[in-house]
Amino acid sequence: MVPPEERLRELGITLPEAPAALGSYVPCVQTGNLLFLSGMLPLREGKLIRTGRLGESVSVSDAQEDAKQVVKNALSIVRAHLGSLDKVTRCVKLSGYVASAPDFIDQPKVLNAASELLRDIFGDHGRHARVAAGVPVLPLNAPLEIDFIFEIKE
Amino acid sequence: MVPPEERLRELGITLPEAPAALGSYVPCVQTGNLLFLSGMLPLREGKLIRTGRLGESVSVSDAQEDAKQVVKNALSIVRAHLGSLDKVTRCVKLSGYVASAPDFIDQPKVLNAASELLRDIFGDHGRHARVAAGVPVLPLNAPLEIDFIFEIKE
Amino acid sequence: MVPPEERLRELGITLPEAPAALGSYVPCVQTGNLLFLSGMLPLREGKLIRTGRLGESVSVSDAQEDAKQVVKNALSIVRAHLGSLDKVTRCVKLSGYVASAPDFIDQPKVLNAASELLRDIFGDHGRHARVAAGVPVLPLNAPLEIDFIFEIKE
Repeated sequence: MVPPEERLRELGITLPEAPAALGSYVPCVQTGNLLFLSGMLPLREGKLIRTGRLGESVSVSDAQEDAKQVVKNALSIVRAHLGSLDKVTRCVKLSGYVASAPDFIDQPKVLNAASELLRDIFGDHGRHARVAAGVPVLPLNAPLEIDFIFEIKE
Repeated sequence: MVPPEERLRELGITLPEAPAALGSYVPCVQTGNLLFLSGMLPLREGKLIRTGRLGESVSVSDAQEDAKQVVKNALSIVRAHLGSLDKVTRCVKLSGYVASAPDFIDQPKVLNAASELLRDIFGDHGRHARVAAGVPVLPLNAPLEIDFIFEIKE
Repeated sequence: MVPPEERLRELGITLPEAPAALGSYVPCVQTGNLLFLSGMLPLREGKLIRTGRLGESVSVSDAQEDAKQVVKNALSIVRAHLGSLDKVTRCVKLSGYVASAPDFIDQPKVLNAASELLRDIFGDHGRHARVAAGVPVLPLNAPLEIDFIFEIKE
């Protein structure tokens, strides 16, 4: 396995500043060798890239861009907590909430963009369990939100 | 406790083939002695038994049948991963997402069918924590989706 | 850190009776040093304080009261399981589902009431990861539901 920090450089990905929490909570909590992240929104420089629902104003390809931003935000939080992504031993699980019109059923297509980016960065250790659900609305009117569980070196 | 594999035979339950993931993820991930499953849909031979929402086209008894199918699919994944259900030490948690018309509030009745099947199979070790939420829409227009956490022998 | 049981007394908070599960599941399951709680509703003496959705019949301040009740119910379950809240080493994660009209986007404001109460009781050990999502409807037509993961002394 190529170390994830090296792999990020190969892919030309620069992680953003770790985003602040939107309320009275913290971005992540470690218990044993599990790291639970808070729900991450597609914020870029403190603002949502776009707002709205899939099946209405937000297209699948737009939301896939959002999903990649969510992964970058998540990894920036993991790096801020651990010092380096190389201390991640695997990605355990993603829970993806997609703001959806009542007839939008392609939540997996949207979330695949996040899953594939994790696999690109972590290789086989990036393969994770996943749950995908449509929701009517999310904080700040975000198109999607993802929370993550990572396994890390203790 | 009757071993779960023996109990399955007593109940006359045959598990299906483990269903494939619907995207760029894997059916389950083990970390320590916890097994996190992906969100499971009521697929039977690769197709949803039915589509739609509770409180509209899908009845509670239909959705209870779906919930049992979801449990069978989940157990087929656990068996494929562990070799035998007898390595499960307990069912920890179910998160159930039920596609719901805005006035449908009987999500617990639907999920009870899943919870009771787990108790029939695992006895006291099948007793689990549970969360139930209504959602507007799920992947493939499924009536429900459940994700699971199991505790297993390391 | 002031022990949480002492802190509860300082704050003048009396925990209710631990609420019963609304179906074929149990209020919490311990695995290792993690305690997974079931989704908690704002029940008081067995009844919801109110029903309905945020952005419709339920105001943010009403729902904040509900969120505090949910925390008290959750802590009553933790105490019933462990004997004392002093065995909690930290609050790991909250997942908050807020019944929301399609244009209600202040789920974090509602959940902050829960997060802040945990911090008041557990101090720095009450700081947790959090996910917030809007949903169309919840069991019993509750305005919100929260599930919790606590880390405890083994």
